[in-house]
Amino acid sequence: MAAGKTDHPLERLVFFSDAVFAIAITLLVIELHPPHLPRGTSDHDHIASLANLLPAFIGYFISFAVVGNFWMGHHRAFSLASHYHPRILIWNMALLAMVAFMPFATAYLSANFTQRVPTVFYCVTMFFAALLNFKVNRIATSPPMVAENVPPDDILYIRVRGLSVLMGTFTAGVVALFIPEYGQMGLISIPFWRRPLLAIARRRAQRAEKATA
Amino acid sequence: MAAGKTDHPLERLVFFSDAVFAIAITLLVIELHPPHLPRGTSDHDHIASLANLLPAFIGYFISFAVVGNFWMGHHRAFSLASHYHPRILIWNMALLAMVAFMPFATAYLSANFTQRVPTVFYCVTMFFAALLNFKVNRIATSPPMVAENVPPDDILYIRVRGLSVLMGTFTAGVVALFIPEYGQMGLISIPFWRRPLLAIARRRAQRAEKATA
Amino acid sequence: MAAGKTDHPLERLVFFSDAVFAIAITLLVIELHPPHLPRGTSDHDHIASLANLLPAFIGYFISFAVVGNFWMGHHRAFSLASHYHPRILIWNMALLAMVAFMPFATAYLSANFTQRVPTVFYCVTMFFAALLNFKVNRIATSPPMVAENVPPDDILYIRVRGLSVLMGTFTAGVVALFIPEYGQMGLISIPFWRRPLLAIARRRAQRAEKATA
Amino acid sequence: MAAGKTDHPLERLVFFSDAVFAIAITLLVIELHPPHLPRGTSDHDHIASLANLLPAFIGYFISFAVVGNFWMGHHRAFSLASHYHPRILIWNMALLAMVAFMPFATAYLSANFTQRVPTVFYCVTMFFAALLNFKVNRIATSPPMVAENVPPDDILYIRVRGLSVLMGTFTAGVVALFIPEYGQMGLISIPFWRRPLLAIARRRAQRAEKATA
Repeated sequence: MAAGKTDHPLERLVFFSDAVFAIAITLLVIELHPPHLPRGTSDHDHIASLANLLPAFIGYFISFAVVGNFWMGHHRAFSLASHYHPRILIWNMALLAMVAFMPFATAYLSANFTQRVPTVFYCVTMFFAALLNFKVNRIATSPPMVAENVPPDDILYIRVRGLSVLMGTFTAGVVALFIPEYGQMGLISIPFWRRPLLAIARRRAQRAEKATA
Repeated sequence: MAAGKTDHPLERLVFFSDAVFAIAITLLVIELHPPHLPRGTSDHDHIASLANLLPAFIGYFISFAVVGNFWMGHHRAFSLASHYHPRILIWNMALLAMVAFMPFATAYLSANFTQRVPTVFYCVTMFFAALLNFKVNRIATSPPMVAENVPPDDILYIRVRGLSVLMGTFTAGVVALFIPEYGQMGLISIPFWRRPLLAIARRRAQRAEKATA
Repeated sequence: MAAGKTDHPLERLVFFSDAVFAIAITLLVIELHPPHLPRGTSDHDHIASLANLLPAFIGYFISFAVVGNFWMGHHRAFSLASHYHPRILIWNMALLAMVAFMPFATAYLSANFTQRVPTVFYCVTMFFAALLNFKVNRIATSPPMVAENVPPDDILYIRVRGLSVLMGTFTAGVVALFIPEYGQMGLISIPFWRRPLLAIARRRAQRAEKATA
Repeated sequence: MAAGKTDHPLERLVFFSDAVFAIAITLLVIELHPPHLPRGTSDHDHIASLANLLPAFIGYFISFAVVGNFWMGHHRAFSLASHYHPRILIWNMALLAMVAFMPFATAYLSANFTQRVPTVFYCVTMFFAALLNFKVNRIATSPPMVAENVPPDDILYIRVRGLSVLMGTFTAGVVALFIPEYGQMGLISIPFWRRPLLAIARRRAQRAEKATA
């Protein structure tokens, strides 16, 4: 398969993934149904009907942030890869299937806000996406895909990012089981996992280096 | 993160943004529900049912023009940038979240035409998008992202464009508060803000130059 | 605006247009509502419910072919352009607004098959899109956008293609006025206009050449 | 048409196809309707309503895998092509029309799971897509489109892949006729057809080579 390529297969894979991420993130809004009130409804009632949608709005922006986070991680991991390996295809496809599934999970949660089962379902979906995301980014930043001259700390940063999403979605899932009202909020913990995980990973990397030296 | 990039991260960011703009602009139509009349309905009744949709059609084309305007501004601002800086990522994501939210705001307005709350909601959405758009374009046309040899007047033009969208959406919001029927029309003022704002900005730039010289 | 471009603005315009064409063409299917029959319905009744959808299926494939035809014309015209001119932006945006509107016109026709008003509405939408398409392709294949070494016959071919779509959609509109059942079928005349129009255009071009010589 | 191209028409064709594949694959989820239960519904009832959706979930993931498979085949075939030929346009368009139609076929099957007619309809749609896919990949990997230095075995592999999808969708269709419940499962046979077909094709190729020598 080495001959006659018009474009690098890695580029087309990245392009296809970007398109699926972009469509899924834009479809998140499609299940927000605008209230339709009869003409002559008072401003007060209009505002009340909007207020009812507040959890759905918050849900939309949180889901947007999480899918955006997945995309940014994908973006960073693949910017370190310079070789294509067919093994990435199937894992990336599985990740995209989960990403494309998110508008459903988000709509299901929005329609049944504060209920335990929908919240746990949403968090489990996010967790599986995070798991596949971690796997895909790991393959992209490992030989034979990773570029030769990438500093090890860049790779470490990508993996810690993926791990922090994994921890954040897991946290959200656990919270959802016990206090469904705050389950989705658990996702806000994602950025807070990054710093401690990075510190641990760097310390381990240094120790490993010393051991080798 | 400097080594081994297969594609410029700026290009992938621009690509992703373009895709979200394109999807959001095309989804504007999805909430236009085609009337379905029983077989044998007279031509007259068909035309009447279409006439009822007229405000929705006008709303679609105005929203299309405004989102298109945002895209064109983004397009111009990023054509002056030649360096990537991670700071742009989060602001650009926030802008895209607002852009992807516009089909909802448009559908909400279409379903409740001439009502105050939906019109103000629509204008406020547009205003926040304009605010984020201004911020993103400012970052893209400032150091360290902007290319070295860009004439200052090009940067000024981009910013004035962004400012005129901000003024137009603000005007629309104020009109919407008092005469909801004409709120969305306020957006038509966007191009009219451009010339006076450009004149003011150029005069200020010249004065600043003289002061330096 | 000449300095510091990271990517050719023409490329980004073409990319954005391609994305809108691709989304609009794929959304055509979204208004096809799958029949949902109770469990235990006989095969015969299932087939009958599918048969009711036959006009909608035909409508989908015709619309797909027409939007595809627009895209192919755009593709060909822009392959002859090598310079960017801001004038194309606004006309291209207007074309995209019509293209993005087509899923609505198609859904409206599908829901009211054989009715005069919906059929005429569909054909008028197609005609306006064809008009804007002709204008955009004309700008792209004229100075200052067209590449220097393009053979005049290539430009002529593009324009005749655009003209044949214009004639086909006009034919469909006229048929729709008198025999709505066959209105959409009028679009099938598009390829048949191409040969005679090409013959006329070439003869005129030769005559003009002789007159100059 | 040889002069003045700003971008290779093959690239734009591939890009447009990728976008349609990406949109169609992401729209598969749109017809999954999230259950909306009244507040206070027990966890048990929530789980029961999710369990009812299980066939729809399985259908989503199978359709995703099949459309993904089509995309991967397209990706591989076009990576071996380095020349553009207008003949591919119309066949590729027909393939995209079938791909964009898949969200409908999937939704129709999901809404009428285990029923014969919807299952057969779904499989026939898949079969036609596989047929067009085979044709498109054949054109892309034949002269004049195929690159000069492509090893014959790479071409053979692409075609066998296409053939295995054809056999898998045919199998699914036959199963659907007799045991509708397992029709869609027949698609899982796609990868199993690959190895025996590859063995047969390689043997035939070797024999042909010997006969020539």
